[in-house]
This record gives sequence, structure tokens and C-alpha cells, in this order.
Amino acid sequence: MAPAVPVSPLAPKSMPDMPAIDGVRFASGAAGIKYKGRTDVTLVLFDEGTTVAGVFTTSKCPSAPVDWCRANLGAGRARALVVNSGNANAFTGRKGVTAVELTAKLTSEATSVPASEIFLASTGVIGEPLPAERFGSVLGDLVRAADPDGITEAARAIMTTDTYPKVATATVDLGGVPVTISGIAKGAGMIAPDMATMLSFVFTDAPVEASALQTLLSRGVKGSFNAITVDSDTSTSDTLMIFATGAAARRGAPAITNAQDPRLAGFAQALDRLLLDLAHQVVKDGEGARKFVAVTVEGAEDDVAAKRIALSIANSPLVKTAVAGEDANWGRVVMAVGKAGERAERDRLAIHFGDTRVAVNGERDPDYSEAATSAYMKNEAITIRTELGLGHGRATVWTCDLTKAYVEINGDYRS
Amino acid sequence: MAPAVPVSPLAPKSMPDMPAIDGVRFASGAAGIKYKGRTDVTLVLFDEGTTVAGVFTTSKCPSAPVDWCRANLGAGRARALVVNSGNANAFTGRKGVTAVELTAKLTSEATSVPASEIFLASTGVIGEPLPAERFGSVLGDLVRAADPDGITEAARAIMTTDTYPKVATATVDLGGVPVTISGIAKGAGMIAPDMATMLSFVFTDAPVEASALQTLLSRGVKGSFNAITVDSDTSTSDTLMIFATGAAARRGAPAITNAQDPRLAGFAQALDRLLLDLAHQVVKDGEGARKFVAVTVEGAEDDVAAKRIALSIANSPLVKTAVAGEDANWGRVVMAVGKAGERAERDRLAIHFGDTRVAVNGERDPDYSEAATSAYMKNEAITIRTELGLGHGRATVWTCDLTKAYVEINGDYRS
Repeated sequence: MAPAVPVSPLAPKSMPDMPAIDGVRFASGAAGIKYKGRTDVTLVLFDEGTTVAGVFTTSKCPSAPVDWCRANLGAGRARALVVNSGNANAFTGRKGVTAVELTAKLTSEATSVPASEIFLASTGVIGEPLPAERFGSVLGDLVRAADPDGITEAARAIMTTDTYPKVATATVDLGGVPVTISGIAKGAGMIAPDMATMLSFVFTDAPVEASALQTLLSRGVKGSFNAITVDSDTSTSDTLMIFATGAAARRGAPAITNAQDPRLAGFAQALDRLLLDLAHQVVKDGEGARKFVAVTVEGAEDDVAAKRIALSIANSPLVKTAVAGEDANWGRVVMAVGKAGERAERDRLAIHFGDTRVAVNGERDPDYSEAATSAYMKNEAITIRTELGLGHGRATVWTCDLTKAYVEINGDYRS
Repeated sequence: MAPAVPVSPLAPKSMPDMPAIDGVRFASGAAGIKYKGRTDVTLVLFDEGTTVAGVFTTSKCPSAPVDWCRANLGAGRARALVVNSGNANAFTGRKGVTAVELTAKLTSEATSVPASEIFLASTGVIGEPLPAERFGSVLGDLVRAADPDGITEAARAIMTTDTYPKVATATVDLGGVPVTISGIAKGAGMIAPDMATMLSFVFTDAPVEASALQTLLSRGVKGSFNAITVDSDTSTSDTLMIFATGAAARRGAPAITNAQDPRLAGFAQALDRLLLDLAHQVVKDGEGARKFVAVTVEGAEDDVAAKRIALSIANSPLVKTAVAGEDANWGRVVMAVGKAGERAERDRLAIHFGDTRVAVNGERDPDYSEAATSAYMKNEAITIRTELGLGHGRATVWTCDLTKAYVEINGDYRS
């Protein structure tokens, strides 16, 4: 079906071929939750022995599926994942809990796995009761259709206002044996740390115990999904989970029980990169985004201060509209540094747009060239770098510009 | 001169007649700082004995005039105020300090009052050196032209992207003698607590000592200028000052030395109302604003928590675009409650749009009527009220919607 809005100009030019992950099968279908004529529910089946870890929204009003996943995560075992788009099952009160329980029950019946090893995620409108009974008619078909090659279709089925499916994959050595990591994600509004994207799922055949997997994921999310922002709004549904089938053990991969295991180094690095790739894809599909912006802060008192200042810049509507207008308005960057609440000394500040230093020692760079800077702002990818000159704290966050299309999309979302 | 953009539809339908304040004279002129063909500098002269108090931006990168005012405020005495628009003299390094010193020197020469009793404020573009020498050619004329009736013209001269001048006045009893309070303000972007508006000046003939005046102002700002937000961006220049000439003492008004003086009650209340009136006018002229939104949070753990949640709602781009789209999207209000970081229990939440309860007990109100709520959202003034059901904390903040015009205005501000 043709998307209602054109694909983001920042979308990757091509999608990678997604190899099968041993022990994972996908199936997507149309349950008619909200959208007509497109897939809106995905079932992922895992072989026995699959471990799981997760990171969820910090919202004080999380969705019913987030509560469900948190409760099931303790055992660290997963056999199935059900994701629907079109309805977030958030702020649905007692009905929300009932819908989650019914979804798990229907899935358990269709798959013959215990409800405690079934994970659920929903994304879409908040506050509408989720008609979970509609899953009943499709789950049996999905179980029969489940196939190792369905991951790209799954990435498509979980989209809401996303304009393109988001996938990433890597193959990496684990104790002399190649293992695969693949992930999918969806945005597109309500993107801010913690968590950043609304939904992302990562799958691997590496044999990694649940607690080690959790350590890797919690570490990897900091510089990726927790370092992106579209509009500073944090969703009630944000969910990032990783599922490890361990199937590569049959090919000789070592079973990893500790995140500090040196054999895990390459895997951990590949996972970090994959999470960053998916996180960037989410930003590049920010509603109405036309520019991809990297905001780096250096020389802060510490990394925490650097990140807070970077987020203050990246979330500032005035900075974001200036980028949209291709205006190298570094005065607004100063404003955003000043409002962040962290230590900053006006007369030590330097600001770069790309390679051009626009301000230094608390004032406009003597060599500032409006023409050169304006030419730079026409690029699709913009870098804003602020040096505070106070310490060694450093952080980078990624965001997009704020355009009229963002207002248009979000001013008319429900109808 | 015709404004570049139409006057905000939320502008007051009429402006009050502004009575003269005994002991205050105004003059506005054109120094050609940035704008052509309009006034951009205002001189306010105060009779001897005038006291002063002020509240300034919390930005870590304040403008040079803010530094200047803070330094002069200690003595609590004022004889002159110079305000220019078009250039904020912020992030101008050593040049900014020189510009401030030159402005004070030129003013001191033209007025024969010491530089330590001269206050300065600048608003406009950040990072451009302020050509303060241009004030030299106009200050002499301004001193000669200064007149008790120039306050409305002063309100006009300090405008930047404002679409209308903001004035308010009140006459109130002080110990049996009527005294007058009048104020002016300008916005319009970078509006967030603390401070909220970029510039506001209040004048009175009441005889109130500087320390008592400071107490009144610091108290009054909490529920007014520090309870409004347009875009969550805090300016480097935000300045609110009050000047009290004490001239009403000649008509028998008592000299007030203590903010707790019971004779001050009516004055304090009138000042609070005037600050709120000006703060509301600033929001109603928020860039691109089409709707005026009051966000009330009740039943929070305490007032601080209530205000933080209210600001989270009022600053949420998704809430603000929904209001712009006349969409009663209370799901986004839930999201904003959830992300505020304060205690909230999903299943106790109730949300009202106007008099219509849209959600209760953590889910959509059983009596929810999409038609009634949609009709309400067509109003120019919108009230969003959230009950948390946890305690007695309460706060109201005011904001405007986020429209395409905001993006348009701020995406093309410098050019």
C-alpha cells in the first residue's frame, strides 16, 4: 500500500539483505486493529532455550504490554513475541490488562508455549481499548506461516507513522564461530531518551545467558537509543528487547555466561553498532525530518553534564527550526547551552558548525564567514559541536530538524 | 509601520489607557540598531529616590546587560533605564562589556546621573556586536523629549517578533492613598521559566523600599512569568524589573519598608495580577500562536511536582501540535504526565478538556463524546486539567499551541 506521506529523504538508500537467524521464525498478518489493507501484527517464534533481555520506557504511565514484559523478564526465557501496530494498549485501565492477558492466552494456545515465555508489544494510539480478540483469528495462520526469512516484513508490520522499515544486521566472530545479530525498529514521534524508539527487537543465534545479555543491552543503549531525540517526548510504550536463541552453539560457538567474557568483545561491539544504526534510522524517520543533526559537546565538567547540554541543544525548538531554515544560528546554541543548567562559562565557549568555527572565546569568530556557513547548512547531515573548555566530559546525541511537516503530521494524527 | 506578520489573533481586543506614573518619564527613538523606520531604543527617567528590584534569566550564558543590572541592583537605587531592541548584546564577549559600559557612559553624560544608577536591557539577535555608539546621537534628544505619557510607545519600541505592544495598569489603595502600577513587556520566542518573558518593566509611584520590592517581585513572578512557556527555550536576556518612585508619599502614602506590612496587601495582590496579565499577553503573542492554553495539574504529591508535570504537558510538542490541530488527544497528555519524572499512578489519573472529563481511572471516560470534545477544541482558549489523585499539590501554567507559523517564523528569523 502506498504510504500516506512520502518516504523520508533521510532514509537509507538501500536495505541490507537480512540473513536468517537460526532458531527464529517470523510471520506477519493483518488483524485489522486500525489500519486497513496492511499488516499490523507480527509473531516471532523462538526455539527452546532462547534467552531474553529488555530495556523499557521510564514513563510513570507505561503501557499494559510494558508491564507484562517487565513481569516476564525475570526468568530470562522467551519462546514467542507478539507485536501489533495501530493501538498502543496504553492508558486502557483494567481493559488493557485484560487485553494483554487475552493476547498471551491466544498466543499460548496457538503455539503451545507457556504465557510466561511470551512477550508482547503494542504501538499506536493511546487510550483506545485494544480489540485483542481479533488476534485469535490470525494467530493460528501466523504459527503455520512462520518462516526464518520474515524479518523485513516484520519490520514493516510494526510501522505506525514511520515512512520506511528499519532493519540492520551484522555477522561477527564468537569464539571462532560466526554468529549473526539482526534487529528491527520503529519510531517515529515521541522519540526521546529513555527509551528513545518506541519499539526495537534484536535477534541473535549467539549462546548468551540472559543476565549477560541484559548487561550488554543496558550498556549498548546508552550511546544509541538513549542518545537520540526527535521531539523530547517519551512514549508510554518504548521497548527494546534482545532474544538469543543460542543455536550457534551447535556450530561450536561457546556458551557465554558473563558479560565480561573477553570472547564477547567483538559481539558486544557489533551489538553497539547495530543499536546505533537502528537508532539513527529512527531519527532519520523523525516526523517531518529533512536534516540529520549530530550534536557533540566537549570539554564539559563530566560526561553526564555533556549529555545534558547536548540534549538541551538537540531538543531546543529554536535550534531545530533554525536547522530547518538552513540558518547557522549559533546564538540559539548559546541559549540552549545556557538553559541546560550545567556549568558553562560564556567566555570560554566555542561553537562549530561542521568544520567551521563560528564562535570562540564567547563571541563570533573573527574569521566567521556567513557565506561559508550558510553553504554548509544546505547539507542533509549537520554537525554542531560545542566546546566548553572546562573539563573532559564528552557526549554526542542525534536529532533531526523541526519542520512544518512535523506540525502537520502531529496536528492531524488521530483522524 | 505595518508589521511583517499579522497581529496575533489572541491579542487583547483593546489596550488600556495608561495613566502617568508620578516620577517616571519615557522617551523612545530610532537608533537604527537593526530595524529601519521604527523606534528601537527607549529611555526611562526616574526621579531621585526611586527604588528598584529585579529578577533575571537563570541562563548560565546571560547577556552583558543582565550582568550589568545584577551588579547595579545591590544599591537598590535607579535614575534611568535604557532598553534597545534588535540586538541582545549577548554572547558578544569583551565587546559586549565595552558596549554596556559605553551605553551607561553616554546615558550618564546625557542625564547627569551616576552610571551605577542606570539600568540596561537589550533584546534581539544574539552574537552580533551592539553598535552602542549609535545611542550617542539619540540620547540627548530622548532626555529632552522624556514625558510621563510615553509608556505605550516604550512598549512598542522594545518589540522584536512581538505582533502587539503589551501594557497593563492598575490603581490600588496604599494606606488610604491611591497609587498606580503600570507595566510593559515583550516576548515572543525563547519563552520559558525562569524567566519567562524576555523583557518586562513595571513602574509605580508607591513608596516601597528596595528590599521589600524585591520580595514582592520574587514572590509575584512564581505564578506569572515563571508559569508560562511558549517553546521551553530560555533566553539569555530575560529581565523583569520594578521601579518605585515613591512620589505617592507626597500625597500621603505611607513609606513601606517591609514586604510583610499589612498595608501592602492590596498593592501586592494588584502587582501579582498585573504580572499575570503581562505574562498572559506574552504567551498570547507566542510565535505562531492560535490558541491560549491553561494547563492545570491537581492532586500531585506537592506543588513542585504539580508544576513540573504541568510544564511537561505544556512543553510537549505532541500536546501542542494536537491543540493546534484541534484534536483532544488526551493520550498525549498521559504521555507527558508519564515522562515528567514525578510520581503518577496511571489508574488514578483523570483528564479534563474544559468541563468535559475525557479520561478517568486510567482509561477513557465511559461517557466520552468525541463530538463534544472536538467542538470544545475549536475554542480560542483551551483548558487542560489533570487530576493525579495522590495529594494536594496544585499548579497552573499557560502556553500556546505549536503551529506551522512557529516553524516558519523561527526558521527564517535572522534573514
